[in-house]
Amino acid sequence: MDIPKTHKAVVYDKPGEVSTRMVELETPAPGPGQIMVKITHSGICHSDLSLMTNTWSWLPEPVKSGQVGGHEGVGVVVQLGPSCENSGLKPGDRVGIKWIASACGNCMPCLAGADGICSNAQVSGYTCPGTFQQYALAPAHYVTPIPDGLPSEVAAPLLCGGVTVYSALKKSRAKAGDWVVIAGAGGGLGHLGVQLGGRGMGFRIIGLDLGTKESFVWECGAEAFIDITKYPADGGSKDPVDEVLRITGGAGAAAAIICSASNAAYAQALSYLSFNGTLVCVGVPGEANPIANAYPHLIVGKQLAIVGSNVGNRREAMETLAMAKRVVKTPVQIENVQNIARVFDEMKNCKLQGRVVLDLGSCT
Amino acid sequence: MDIPKTHKAVVYDKPGEVSTRMVELETPAPGPGQIMVKITHSGICHSDLSLMTNTWSWLPEPVKSGQVGGHEGVGVVVQLGPSCENSGLKPGDRVGIKWIASACGNCMPCLAGADGICSNAQVSGYTCPGTFQQYALAPAHYVTPIPDGLPSEVAAPLLCGGVTVYSALKKSRAKAGDWVVIAGAGGGLGHLGVQLGGRGMGFRIIGLDLGTKESFVWECGAEAFIDITKYPADGGSKDPVDEVLRITGGAGAAAAIICSASNAAYAQALSYLSFNGTLVCVGVPGEANPIANAYPHLIVGKQLAIVGSNVGNRREAMETLAMAKRVVKTPVQIENVQNIARVFDEMKNCKLQGRVVLDLGSCT
Amino acid sequence: MDIPKTHKAVVYDKPGEVSTRMVELETPAPGPGQIMVKITHSGICHSDLSLMTNTWSWLPEPVKSGQVGGHEGVGVVVQLGPSCENSGLKPGDRVGIKWIASACGNCMPCLAGADGICSNAQVSGYTCPGTFQQYALAPAHYVTPIPDGLPSEVAAPLLCGGVTVYSALKKSRAKAGDWVVIAGAGGGLGHLGVQLGGRGMGFRIIGLDLGTKESFVWECGAEAFIDITKYPADGGSKDPVDEVLRITGGAGAAAAIICSASNAAYAQALSYLSFNGTLVCVGVPGEANPIANAYPHLIVGKQLAIVGSNVGNRREAMETLAMAKRVVKTPVQIENVQNIARVFDEMKNCKLQGRVVLDLGSCT
Amino acid sequence: MDIPKTHKAVVYDKPGEVSTRMVELETPAPGPGQIMVKITHSGICHSDLSLMTNTWSWLPEPVKSGQVGGHEGVGVVVQLGPSCENSGLKPGDRVGIKWIASACGNCMPCLAGADGICSNAQVSGYTCPGTFQQYALAPAHYVTPIPDGLPSEVAAPLLCGGVTVYSALKKSRAKAGDWVVIAGAGGGLGHLGVQLGGRGMGFRIIGLDLGTKESFVWECGAEAFIDITKYPADGGSKDPVDEVLRITGGAGAAAAIICSASNAAYAQALSYLSFNGTLVCVGVPGEANPIANAYPHLIVGKQLAIVGSNVGNRREAMETLAMAKRVVKTPVQIENVQNIARVFDEMKNCKLQGRVVLDLGSCT
Repeated sequence: MDIPKTHKAVVYDKPGEVSTRMVELETPAPGPGQIMVKITHSGICHSDLSLMTNTWSWLPEPVKSGQVGGHEGVGVVVQLGPSCENSGLKPGDRVGIKWIASACGNCMPCLAGADGICSNAQVSGYTCPGTFQQYALAPAHYVTPIPDGLPSEVAAPLLCGGVTVYSALKKSRAKAGDWVVIAGAGGGLGHLGVQLGGRGMGFRIIGLDLGTKESFVWECGAEAFIDITKYPADGGSKDPVDEVLRITGGAGAAAAIICSASNAAYAQALSYLSFNGTLVCVGVPGEANPIANAYPHLIVGKQLAIVGSNVGNRREAMETLAMAKRVVKTPVQIENVQNIARVFDEMKNCKLQGRVVLDLGSCT
Repeated sequence: MDIPKTHKAVVYDKPGEVSTRMVELETPAPGPGQIMVKITHSGICHSDLSLMTNTWSWLPEPVKSGQVGGHEGVGVVVQLGPSCENSGLKPGDRVGIKWIASACGNCMPCLAGADGICSNAQVSGYTCPGTFQQYALAPAHYVTPIPDGLPSEVAAPLLCGGVTVYSALKKSRAKAGDWVVIAGAGGGLGHLGVQLGGRGMGFRIIGLDLGTKESFVWECGAEAFIDITKYPADGGSKDPVDEVLRITGGAGAAAAIICSASNAAYAQALSYLSFNGTLVCVGVPGEANPIANAYPHLIVGKQLAIVGSNVGNRREAMETLAMAKRVVKTPVQIENVQNIARVFDEMKNCKLQGRVVLDLGSCT
Repeated sequence: MDIPKTHKAVVYDKPGEVSTRMVELETPAPGPGQIMVKITHSGICHSDLSLMTNTWSWLPEPVKSGQVGGHEGVGVVVQLGPSCENSGLKPGDRVGIKWIASACGNCMPCLAGADGICSNAQVSGYTCPGTFQQYALAPAHYVTPIPDGLPSEVAAPLLCGGVTVYSALKKSRAKAGDWVVIAGAGGGLGHLGVQLGGRGMGFRIIGLDLGTKESFVWECGAEAFIDITKYPADGGSKDPVDEVLRITGGAGAAAAIICSASNAAYAQALSYLSFNGTLVCVGVPGEANPIANAYPHLIVGKQLAIVGSNVGNRREAMETLAMAKRVVKTPVQIENVQNIARVFDEMKNCKLQGRVVLDLGSCT
Repeated sequence: MDIPKTHKAVVYDKPGEVSTRMVELETPAPGPGQIMVKITHSGICHSDLSLMTNTWSWLPEPVKSGQVGGHEGVGVVVQLGPSCENSGLKPGDRVGIKWIASACGNCMPCLAGADGICSNAQVSGYTCPGTFQQYALAPAHYVTPIPDGLPSEVAAPLLCGGVTVYSALKKSRAKAGDWVVIAGAGGGLGHLGVQLGGRGMGFRIIGLDLGTKESFVWECGAEAFIDITKYPADGGSKDPVDEVLRITGGAGAAAAIICSASNAAYAQALSYLSFNGTLVCVGVPGEANPIANAYPHLIVGKQLAIVGSNVGNRREAMETLAMAKRVVKTPVQIENVQNIARVFDEMKNCKLQGRVVLDLGSCT
């Protein structure tokens, strides 16, 4: 296929601020084991905003000016470099590029199937050029094949939020039929978790979020919804902990998936879990605070588990797409690349509903 | 067999203080499903001291004056009440009575094999008469058979500290060949954990404790020892975290079993665990503080797990005794019942070495 | 409540033949730990027929003449014997009696949560009086509470076929989203397995059965159906193995649950499973033949597993009822006790559709 | 380092017979992702004999004439091809080449951590040149690093027999303290399994083999030994099944690892396993016969599992070497390459004791 010498890309202009710029970059040639992907769609994730605005205080170093952002890319294979024989790929195949752009396959986490925390990982839009561009190089062995019948714009955000929450649900020790709480149920990860965990895995989902997200969470298939703004401290009449206990007949939930970055969400969870219950950490508050009531006597007394789940591995990415094709029914909003600044502004001001995907074909 | 009308027992006299008294109690008759056990030996555990002195601030209510203490009893079945047919017991059998004196077998924890946290449990020496007495009633279905060849005085402390640390080791997600840190390695639980985990389960044990416990921990079979008094804050030259990383070739330990009740031990563990590592909470600090660095970003970044392990279930008690018979080689110290006050005093002042077991035959 | 001195029961008259007789029996009083249940409904299971007609050649001994049959009973607690305090039961509660009428809670299988193979089990309708009677004694700690909102006639067959297939599905090592084949998908166990496994657990179900069961299997929620009568040996055009491979995109199924008692069903399964696939043995052919292609080189080459699943445990019975209440939508057929002989005849001649439940209130 | 233009290799001359020949081959240059290994030692495994003599009837095709044999190689990295940056290797490192010479890292088995059954695997000494040569190419990402302190000649056979039996032991569902039977305990796999399973994993090992292997099996650390030649059919006085039951106190063994290629060994195992017991298939009889008593009613009644274990994955290879360094104490016999024909003859006639390793430095 015809690959131009240069292509358009969106870079972070002044890290620390919401500031992007479109640039023209030279298009490189794929090296051994690499493929060239013509990106058609890229999701915009809250992590892109956090990177751009340096709000994760615990990151080893901030993102650099001029970095091509984005980590939820879907496109078409247009060229294979040398040594790609065993990849099973051919020009024309649709593939996805995710947060972990490449994993080495050789470190202890990779050998343990934890390539989401590969010691030699490259991260899209942070340590290597991301998916806010028309052409991107990717390792043939680490892209995610997109199943037939799953639209590219739907696949894009699944590659990050979908996989992450799918992996978290799998680590929850819950089994089909168990009550599972999703905190931040109406958010970018949460709304996918409600659908994957409920329709997909047979969990009985209790969604926790702001009342404004209520109808959206019901549409996703939750069996119960708790409006956290009605928490007593805010003059409301209900305590999420009491509500979870009431809904579960007094037993408590088998698991809680914390998709929000709220310290309160973490602290509540340990109180509404049943014995042998599991709190899965996913959302990461910008400031580092310990989980407020991670008391040994409480953890011992109910035999609780607190487990951390990172972004999922490549196999889970494939499983997520296959499951999502059957059970995820929420729409995505397609935006012209020109509007990326507005989207980030709305995201920062919590005005976005659902997921936004850039149409890279609209670069001009 | 001949059962006297009354028998001797040691009760807590003034809860809040180290104060015991020997009394003469009426010997009851076993009801349906109950057996009468003539206690020959009872371990003295640090939990007995904590109960007697009310040092666990998080307990629902303090122990009562006049309570018969003790929860590590071994004795001989002398009488079976009605409806004990399926128990497999007969007069003359040796059995053990442990912290959980009886579990209902009918609540959700029991049905999940978590009878250590049975909703209807009776606790020896706290909610029901304990094992500091010559005769004790026990449920036929919940006593622990003592295997032939295991001396009663050795079995007694295994029924509490042994089972508890065995269950914790099993919950650690570590596999044979993995490095496992035991904090408090020379203590009542820890020294059994070193032997069960190392010689019994094939873990490579790193013991953490005061330097005075060093030779004892080596005898138990540890592969490495770290003296926590050499921690920098105390002018020492070594940091336990750095030491664990050095010993494990930089990878960190697969699991940490916190047998001490030290907040520092909890906080260190999250730093020296490898990716996918597990911190098992066992020891419970008297004051409730959250684990100091239970930060979501740390737990997510290394995919750590923090799990709570209570006292183990009945099946694990049987497994512990069978394993201990082969691998536990440390001696116990047998004391006359008259010396119980002195033993508690030494325990309070951290002067006890290893485990002390009362000889109930010495009551006069 | 008012308990009569005698009550009606259906017994096997001439074991080896389809032959039943209604008799009048003395109603006993509950002993310690026992309750009296007024049975309102009892399912009729193919195992009742097998027992009555002595078709299981591998049973240790045949059923006795005069045995009260039945093992899928639901009724109301009318009396509690002594020592039932911790059972949580009170008169008026609805409870179920299943194949394992009582388990000792004390043997190694029971301690391992495998009370379905308890060493001291009593089997309803085989080693102790079954549920084809108006009043039955049962152990307070082993009956299954019936959840509110689940009709008794629906609950009855779930206590046997439902629990058995639920337990088998859990032992299948399959995870949500995996393809799972159910052989005998339209039968007494299979049709419940399709609903529990598909709607309940998120498996993608492929049903195998006779073409006459096709529409019924679709109603149960299967995603694919294979008519086994079209197997080449019978002149048909399709091979079930090829069909499973085609449906699964060449990969094979993650698990096969063999609910039929057919040697061919067992043999096919090992060929259509994917690598790491699991064959779960449930149905038991009357004559003992080894699984025809259980070749070590085949099992090693694909790393297959063949696992046996018995009738499930008490906890699984509770989980099954809770899940079935939400996902099982197939009707049961209620019959007057007088018609029991006709029902057995139709069952023997494979003319029954779905599950039949006796209305014990119709005894006169 | 200095790499010669040609090097010596041992090839199969007339597949079907025991016939080898030394040849001079051109030494190739490493391609992208490949390294050149100067082989110093290569184990001689029974599988080499089976391949050379075409005794595995179920193989898709026989080995070709001129094939360089061998699949247990250890050597030194002498050259790295392009694109080996993330491999962590440098010239001088010792590495191992095993049965699976390379795995794609991209197929479904590889993504599931089952690279031992990689869909695109190359097999040393069968589908690609093996380790009976002075220089061999290998993929940088798939060789096994040899830990410091483990002699190369000891490591060589561990890379095949050691990893295979280690992986089988891990798949056995047995836990530390359980009784595990190893059939063929004195053989090439078995004697490593006794040491890894016993000293390494804490299993209580019962070894089954010919009486001539008895003292060797004891040296490996077995807790019991059963001489299978005393089986009744041969006029002996003991039945292995009865013996296992006696040794385990009537309960049966938790697992059986069948390292021999004997149909009888498979059939016995299902009879001496305890409830929930696991038979792990490792050894593969030359002729395909189903496991003689793989009856559904037996598998269901005791809830047994039959699982297949192939050669282990790369991670397990690393774990095996680390564990073996601490617990494997049996010697290997080093032979001059010139003697390879004699070694194969002795192997064929069952006259070899322990493991033989070729010294490739002896090629002249």
